[in-house]
Amino acid sequence: MALPIFASDALSSVAYAPQELLMILLVGGLAFLSFSPWVAAAVVVLLVVVVLSYRQLIKAYPSGGGDYEVARTNLGEVPGVVVAAALLVDYVLTVAVSVASGVDNIISAIPALNPFRVEIAVGFVILIVIVNLRGVREASTVFAVPTYLFIGSVAVMIAVGLGRTVLGDAPVASSAQYAVRAEDLGQIAVILLILRAFSSGCSALTGVEAVSNGVPAFRKPKIRNAQTTLTLMGGIAILLFSGLTVLALVAGVHYAENPCHLIGFDCANQPQPSLMAQVAAATFGMGSIPFFIIQAATAAVLLLAANTAFNGFPLLGAVLARDGYAPKALNTRGDRLVYSNGMIILGIVAIGVLIVYQANLTTLIQLYIIGVFVSFSLGQIGMVRHWRRVLRNMRDLPEEARRQSAARYERRSAISGLWINSAGASLTVLVLLIVTITKFTHGAYLVFLAIPILATLMIGVNRYYRDVEHEIRMDDTVHFGSEGDVAIVLVNRLQKPVVKAIDYAMAARHDKTLAVHVAIDEADADRLQKQWEEHNVPVPLVIIESPYRAYTSPIVSFIKKYREKHGSAVVTVYLPQYIVGHWWETILHNRRSRRLAQQLMLVHGVSITLVPWLLDSSELIYGRRSRPLPGQQRGGQPAPLPGHVPHARRATRPSGPPDNS
Amino acid sequence: MALPIFASDALSSVAYAPQELLMILLVGGLAFLSFSPWVAAAVVVLLVVVVLSYRQLIKAYPSGGGDYEVARTNLGEVPGVVVAAALLVDYVLTVAVSVASGVDNIISAIPALNPFRVEIAVGFVILIVIVNLRGVREASTVFAVPTYLFIGSVAVMIAVGLGRTVLGDAPVASSAQYAVRAEDLGQIAVILLILRAFSSGCSALTGVEAVSNGVPAFRKPKIRNAQTTLTLMGGIAILLFSGLTVLALVAGVHYAENPCHLIGFDCANQPQPSLMAQVAAATFGMGSIPFFIIQAATAAVLLLAANTAFNGFPLLGAVLARDGYAPKALNTRGDRLVYSNGMIILGIVAIGVLIVYQANLTTLIQLYIIGVFVSFSLGQIGMVRHWRRVLRNMRDLPEEARRQSAARYERRSAISGLWINSAGASLTVLVLLIVTITKFTHGAYLVFLAIPILATLMIGVNRYYRDVEHEIRMDDTVHFGSEGDVAIVLVNRLQKPVVKAIDYAMAARHDKTLAVHVAIDEADADRLQKQWEEHNVPVPLVIIESPYRAYTSPIVSFIKKYREKHGSAVVTVYLPQYIVGHWWETILHNRRSRRLAQQLMLVHGVSITLVPWLLDSSELIYGRRSRPLPGQQRGGQPAPLPGHVPHARRATRPSGPPDNS
Repeated sequence: MALPIFASDALSSVAYAPQELLMILLVGGLAFLSFSPWVAAAVVVLLVVVVLSYRQLIKAYPSGGGDYEVARTNLGEVPGVVVAAALLVDYVLTVAVSVASGVDNIISAIPALNPFRVEIAVGFVILIVIVNLRGVREASTVFAVPTYLFIGSVAVMIAVGLGRTVLGDAPVASSAQYAVRAEDLGQIAVILLILRAFSSGCSALTGVEAVSNGVPAFRKPKIRNAQTTLTLMGGIAILLFSGLTVLALVAGVHYAENPCHLIGFDCANQPQPSLMAQVAAATFGMGSIPFFIIQAATAAVLLLAANTAFNGFPLLGAVLARDGYAPKALNTRGDRLVYSNGMIILGIVAIGVLIVYQANLTTLIQLYIIGVFVSFSLGQIGMVRHWRRVLRNMRDLPEEARRQSAARYERRSAISGLWINSAGASLTVLVLLIVTITKFTHGAYLVFLAIPILATLMIGVNRYYRDVEHEIRMDDTVHFGSEGDVAIVLVNRLQKPVVKAIDYAMAARHDKTLAVHVAIDEADADRLQKQWEEHNVPVPLVIIESPYRAYTSPIVSFIKKYREKHGSAVVTVYLPQYIVGHWWETILHNRRSRRLAQQLMLVHGVSITLVPWLLDSSELIYGRRSRPLPGQQRGGQPAPLPGHVPHARRATRPSGPPDNS
Repeated sequence: MALPIFASDALSSVAYAPQELLMILLVGGLAFLSFSPWVAAAVVVLLVVVVLSYRQLIKAYPSGGGDYEVARTNLGEVPGVVVAAALLVDYVLTVAVSVASGVDNIISAIPALNPFRVEIAVGFVILIVIVNLRGVREASTVFAVPTYLFIGSVAVMIAVGLGRTVLGDAPVASSAQYAVRAEDLGQIAVILLILRAFSSGCSALTGVEAVSNGVPAFRKPKIRNAQTTLTLMGGIAILLFSGLTVLALVAGVHYAENPCHLIGFDCANQPQPSLMAQVAAATFGMGSIPFFIIQAATAAVLLLAANTAFNGFPLLGAVLARDGYAPKALNTRGDRLVYSNGMIILGIVAIGVLIVYQANLTTLIQLYIIGVFVSFSLGQIGMVRHWRRVLRNMRDLPEEARRQSAARYERRSAISGLWINSAGASLTVLVLLIVTITKFTHGAYLVFLAIPILATLMIGVNRYYRDVEHEIRMDDTVHFGSEGDVAIVLVNRLQKPVVKAIDYAMAARHDKTLAVHVAIDEADADRLQKQWEEHNVPVPLVIIESPYRAYTSPIVSFIKKYREKHGSAVVTVYLPQYIVGHWWETILHNRRSRRLAQQLMLVHGVSITLVPWLLDSSELIYGRRSRPLPGQQRGGQPAPLPGHVPHARRATRPSGPPDNS
């Protein structure tokens, strides 16, 4: 059952990898399709090597840290951060590519939706974000049905298609009739084109690393089970990838980068069906039930792949936040115990990417593979370092210990690990070079900008937190015993919230308690003075003149002068604070009070006391009780005893300690 | 000099009104252009009546409140709010229409910019917002040059064009050669088409009301000067409007709603030049210097018109906020004494409208005129009421007083006012009906949704503020004298900010001061306990168990139990608060502390004291001093004396009193 959870990401790439591979070759003309078996074979070899390499990684680092942990442990901080940046970029592109391809396959089945391509894609991302914010339980069945349906239906299609071919009734794709306007290419261009096709085909490898990040989620024996799952997944991916490629060749699918290059195809009014749709239509008939099943399963598994990124990205964000490389907010769980900040960021960025690239799969694929191979390469290089260190440590053991059979077994396995990961590292670095050369001008340079920028930001964040930590550490300068304090209650008009603030200030028995009013308007000040006497308010009222209608600066100079004259070390400013029942009410109460608090906190010796006043005016407007907020006496008057616990929904949410910021 | 300030809005509409008028008629075919002099004449008549009506309004309400004040005073709250809503919608559309038309005229001169139409429009709006946020001085010269250049160059063009016509060398527009694919219309459709053309022509009237909102800005005698300016402006508008219409007819300008209906015009690859550009090209030659001057002046005056909305909208917003119909934040002046919130809202909404309608002038015009005529009509009806009340009051005067010559003069002027405004009211209501009927299905229904929604929101806001005011009013339940208080300092780790908070809590001499730690992690709690003893912290440390890793709820139940046991009325919770030097640092400190404060404020009897700690880690990262924040001792340790004044930039900004929210 572990397969479907991790497999959707890796297997879904089969839905676009053969298409992109053949598409690039077709730029050179129909004759170039004869290269495709060789290019596909190269992709398969690479896939085998990568799967074997990741089996080693799982064994050595079963904690689920994946490439980030390997690179950080074995290569140091900068490579670790670079891998993290590459993975973050990758998660974004996993969402964008998977959703774009999913929408492509939906449109292939229902061409009438073509004008809404971007809208549908954005809609799916929003849907996935909402589902994940609500805290989806990773119920295996939800994942299992589409994944197994995808594997099963595509396998059946390949079997049927190849069976028909053997029986002499080979399926024929509708695009087989179209001729292709090919470019004239020189020798170097031919080589580059083949390498570009190989690079695009490598998109079949994306998602293989997912298992290595999920080892802790496996049943025991975790390592063995994870390795088995990985191998199984790799095998299935190879079968589907090669089967689809061969069947597409047999059926004569002509999928063009620009559909207008297909002579005879009405490119202006009709979307080009995906390779999957063309093969399915050729095998089972356009519009047949199996055709729709295959398209639905393909779209579903692609959307699930996008969904897995919404598990991976926030988790990596939280790990980075824990290690001090990302804002701590990414390590905060939301209402439903999910890392909601990370999910929202991923959703927004993915939507942005989809809109900018108009949900165009081919363009997005160009960006995708770079990040994958950056983390593959650094992870593998890290593994090579890891095995070399293991072997070095063994060499340092006493002769006796080395002779034991367990030690000999371990040594053999370390040597084989070194060989496998060296092969993996060489190959992935080579592919990274190929991908870079062939994709750089096709948009991949943006990824080459994004990764170092992200990595630099992460290191900057880390240094920032380190410096803050250093600054607030206890040292010998710490002392207690400030003497003399004064409470200042700011008063605009004599209203109940102010009365409550005065009452609280008096209860705290400050050395001195004053009410202060800034006289912006003289008539208002006179009226306040009169009311003050009428109501016998038991603290003195000080009225400060403000000839220029300023508010903050007269208070600041009053505080300053008061401290100079009376030598108070501590000034506590009391501010009544409205607590509203609905979010939209905050729009209606302006933030001057908050801004004032921010400004006063910059003044030497000042602290701010917020005295809450619960507004329940929503009742008055709607004639119904607003949602209950027990724990706050309604109207907020100071009443003796006893208090209540605030509403459980908010208060019982487990949340870590604040960092006082 | 008053002319250019107010005139850009009204005169700029001449740049699109004739074009839209002729365009609608052309839907019926070339023959329909023969109706255009009559339709244009009707627009001119309407313009004359409206100008005369507004002369009356200026006399009666010289305070600058315009239609909103008139409707509110004479018709009551709901019509007043409806006018306000219509005006707000209008300001948004003034920006959108003017910018769209300005970009149109720029593209007419430089067709290569056509693919960037929306981007250029959005760019201009952003530019205008930035300029206004920086607080542009309404320097007359900035307004005068383009306005006079526009008036002068268009007048010269009309004179030259008509002169050439008289001399038998009539200018010929490039579009004169194109035939038009006309629709076949029934009789009713013909009438509707002519009425639609009239409605579109009425866009020439937009902006006439601007003078009535600006009377206080005129030199004395204000009323006389304002009236003169209005009349002058109306005269110029009539001259330019009729001149342009006639010249366009003479030159045979064929401007189509859909340029692909122009047979022979390459509508796919080439933008349709604006009517202004076609006339200018026909008169002076395409690409000649006068052609470019006219296009530049037209674009400039249109952008100035958009700019005037950035004066009007925030001002109306502030008036509405003062009257309690809009969030008070709209009545807050920003750093540079401008109503920045209103400007930002207007900018965002206008950009949204421009993007949604792809900066398409014709579509935007459909929305524009409704709002204008809603406020025209209600303003005029209000004026009718006003004069009738004036006359009624006169009738109630004693016979003797009525006979005096001043009274007789006033009575005569009231009667003439009544006649003029009755005519104005009837005509504008009639036009409002025509505009509604002809434009409703062309998008104007959106305005009919927006105005009542806005008006309802405003009334809701007003009721909300009224209820809050009622709730916090002083009454007999008010009393002082809560007894017994306790201070709780929340401690996660023993760091300097916590020490400062403890120091401040001790200075305030609460009945009791406690430090409280929630033990999420036992090892952390033990370490804290040890540190506490090491540093001889002079307040007792209470460690609360939290088996479920919750943070807020253990504190809440601790406070509740403590109050039950000790009978404290007031609990003050001390929270250290980081003050950061740069905005981006706030991203790096999570808001748990703020959320905790919000949650604790819901608990009975709790107030929150924020003890600031200034972070200056930015220095450490960059090796330079961060921007100075005098008034805060660096590092934030409690030190005896004396304090400093906070930095003048923020503190001396005049700002009204906060409303404690």
